Amino acid sequence: MELKVALIQQSCTASRTENIDKTISMIEKASQSGAELIALQELHTSLYFCQTENGANFDLAEPIPSETTKIFSQIAAQKKIILITSLFERRAAGLYHNTAVVFDTDGSIEGKYRKMHIPDDPAFYEKFYFTPGDLGFEPIQTSRGKLGVLICWDQWFPEAARLMALKGAELLIYPTAIGWDTQDTPEEQEKQLSAWLTIQRSHAVANGIPVLSINRVGHEKDPSGQTTGIKFWGNSFIAGSQGELLKIASRDQEEVLSGEINLNQSEKVRRIWPFFRDRRVDAYKDILKLYDN
Amino acid sequence: MELKVALIQQSCTASRTENIDKTISMIEKASQSGAELIALQELHTSLYFCQTENGANFDLAEPIPSETTKIFSQIAAQKKIILITSLFERRAAGLYHNTAVVFDTDGSIEGKYRKMHIPDDPAFYEKFYFTPGDLGFEPIQTSRGKLGVLICWDQWFPEAARLMALKGAELLIYPTAIGWDTQDTPEEQEKQLSAWLTIQRSHAVANGIPVLSINRVGHEKDPSGQTTGIKFWGNSFIAGSQGELLKIASRDQEEVLSGEINLNQSEKVRRIWPFFRDRRVDAYKDILKLYDN
Repeated sequence: MELKVALIQQSCTASRTENIDKTISMIEKASQSGAELIALQELHTSLYFCQTENGANFDLAEPIPSETTKIFSQIAAQKKIILITSLFERRAAGLYHNTAVVFDTDGSIEGKYRKMHIPDDPAFYEKFYFTPGDLGFEPIQTSRGKLGVLICWDQWFPEAARLMALKGAELLIYPTAIGWDTQDTPEEQEKQLSAWLTIQRSHAVANGIPVLSINRVGHEKDPSGQTTGIKFWGNSFIAGSQGELLKIASRDQEEVLSGEINLNQSEKVRRIWPFFRDRRVDAYKDILKLYDN
Repeated sequence: MELKVALIQQSCTASRTENIDKTISMIEKASQSGAELIALQELHTSLYFCQTENGANFDLAEPIPSETTKIFSQIAAQKKIILITSLFERRAAGLYHNTAVVFDTDGSIEGKYRKMHIPDDPAFYEKFYFTPGDLGFEPIQTSRGKLGVLICWDQWFPEAARLMALKGAELLIYPTAIGWDTQDTPEEQEKQLSAWLTIQRSHAVANGIPVLSINRVGHEKDPSGQTTGIKFWGNSFIAGSQGELLKIASRDQEEVLSGEINLNQSEKVRRIWPFFRDRRVDAYKDILKLYDN
């Protein structure tokens, strides 16, 4: 079962309309090339606003469903695609999430995933904005497969990928917004990019399922002027169920990254590498501790 | 705190004496270059005998301690090194393990680890020989650090690496015996090697600690003649605490692979990538299931 997928790697501006218009035109392009599943990067309707802690940024959030989900629902139905979007969800006053919304080919919302692991480090002040998700690690069933949608920081946690796979996810999808501190050395920057590719490819290896990762590009200034901003590193990629890199985008260009993944391949890979047969669940219980002391 | 390490990548024959003599001479060479911690490959005193299920091979097993541990104890004390060995343990009639034994600089046995995840696939019939370990995932405290020793098949399981790290391991060490089925295509062979490097480097990334992996080289025939044997792929490597590849050996040569790792680097890496801060232990409990249905 071949599935034609496309990843939309774009830059963003402060204009929501501009961002959405650009996304829609890239979706149209991807669909013309035959894409059946299209995935967008993290928080694609805005700049990556978490570079500073600014209460006014909560105005960017919206309930789900919303005007924005209506737009994406329409394009999903029109193009008959599975569409993975990433939105800033306003659940109640003072309660916000970083949420992925999945649309099926008829435009219906099949499910959402609220980012479970929330980062917080200089220029990525997400703990100010997002309450950690309370929906758990639940794959979303669509007409083209069960999708393990996770978001950005989740990618560093093997537990998240494993849980999605144990619940039947046939594919992992990571909308993300990650980039370089331009003041780091080129060597440090390459090390970080390599670690990011490695850990996500490893989730494909450990679980025998393909991985899609969608990252933004472009340099976004730090509104506070405290740092030199973030240079988002692109490199959106498609990995097969043995972790092999099938397609990878540039580090600085907007791109529709298209490829094909074979969901039946997992059956074959898990026969030659039967890791699921051999897990020592009798000896894993300390994983439920933060640390073993 | 720099630690000079050396990995002994060697080929083996049917002669135990020859294998041990070669190992000793490679340990001497590594020690002369200043190695403080030396790690050996999986089952380094014999051929990889698991290519067939043959009851006579249980004669290769020995209790721990044994004549063999005496030899390695002596060389560890003589060279004042931490030494990681990998033996076929006879615990009782009908009860055998694949066991790593760690010696400290005074020659004492600091601890052992019994391989927890046991593979079984054509040419790797380990379930016939080894009972899965019952010592859990416990790091071994030595005078030069707390070592997370795991063995071969364990490397495919992120849970094993995580548990060692949560229990304070400062370093992961994987004695291993992995190779190619020479009848696979070159493309498939490269995919497997890449997956093997990727998953192990990912344990360094996820846990912010260095990883050493020690593999054998050489082609070993299948005594049953059913397959064309295994071409062990070498590529022993040292990765830093961001998963960066510091040193890597050839795919077909015997080598002492020397390098330095900085155990203090983990403190720094875990500050910029504070994954341990953010684990969602409240939402991980289904990891204790084989599968979620």
